[in-house]
Amino acid sequence: MPRKEDFPVERVRQYLEPGPIVLVSSRWGGRNNIMTMGWHMVMEFMPSLLGCLISGGNHSHEMIRKSGECVINLPTTKLTDEVIAIGNSSGAEIDKFEEFGLTAQTAAKVDAPLISECHASFECRIHDDALVDKYNLFIFEVVKAHVAKSPKHPETLHYTGDGVFMVSGKIIHRRSQFRPGML
Amino acid sequence: MPRKEDFPVERVRQYLEPGPIVLVSSRWGGRNNIMTMGWHMVMEFMPSLLGCLISGGNHSHEMIRKSGECVINLPTTKLTDEVIAIGNSSGAEIDKFEEFGLTAQTAAKVDAPLISECHASFECRIHDDALVDKYNLFIFEVVKAHVAKSPKHPETLHYTGDGVFMVSGKIIHRRSQFRPGML
Repeated sequence: MPRKEDFPVERVRQYLEPGPIVLVSSRWGGRNNIMTMGWHMVMEFMPSLLGCLISGGNHSHEMIRKSGECVINLPTTKLTDEVIAIGNSSGAEIDKFEEFGLTAQTAAKVDAPLISECHASFECRIHDDALVDKYNLFIFEVVKAHVAKSPKHPETLHYTGDGVFMVSGKIIHRRSQFRPGML
Repeated sequence: MPRKEDFPVERVRQYLEPGPIVLVSSRWGGRNNIMTMGWHMVMEFMPSLLGCLISGGNHSHEMIRKSGECVINLPTTKLTDEVIAIGNSSGAEIDKFEEFGLTAQTAAKVDAPLISECHASFECRIHDDALVDKYNLFIFEVVKAHVAKSPKHPETLHYTGDGVFMVSGKIIHRRSQFRPGML
């Protein structure tokens, strides 16, 4: 189990801007759920805002809308089977934590649980629901971030559709080429 | 120069859902420009919608807002130096195509140019500007897509901030594990 530590919310872009598949955990009416999400983006450093597409067809959509909260968790390639299984199933029928052997951990600021097995977990509250009805677009604020200290750049899954993931892990360091302020 | 062919607009998620750094080209008032963009997401298959964060501080912001158009181009790791140099500079001062030796190619449906050196180019029109004033969030529709036939999964750059890119290229095929309809 990765040992996660507090991480500054204004720096979550380090993990989400590269575009990994994430697992969204939620809690409503005494039940937990998890969904797999590929359509998300960073929108602002501070407040720490994320745009997330959560289709109305997902059981999680209503749970998140009603509770106003969720946790966005970052799985690594070790969890590839779980990522697929979670996407294949519905929380209306099963408890995905139990079914897939994942650990629901109490969060600090929201009722939705963290997924202990993930490399990072970002506690979120709905910041703006103006485009939920029209596009299923939720704008969340990350209110608390937990990240495993190592590895600094874990191997993450990036979905292309059609059952194929690209893997990120190899790193290119180019800090010296950037103009200050453009990093 | 990659030889690009027509590609179905409803399938651009194959290239953009993995979260690569992209180059956004625009044209307004007889001038071309390019910016580097890391904050974007797929929002719908058809119409083919993308959410893109283009800060008001970018010269491209006004050019795209006024013209209502842009082209989102996918660079590979071969263009790492150009990606950084484009992000480091402003189109208010230089012609980035000329400065960085890139080729502006006439698009099919928009006035903004394609970047010939990129693996893929997606011609876009503004679909919804409801959240531009509040968040700099543009919702574009991809109206025409051009993609190089090979490689099928090019090595792309995924920015983490702080001058560090992750590279995607290695592939995990798991088609057989997906429930039909969940691909």
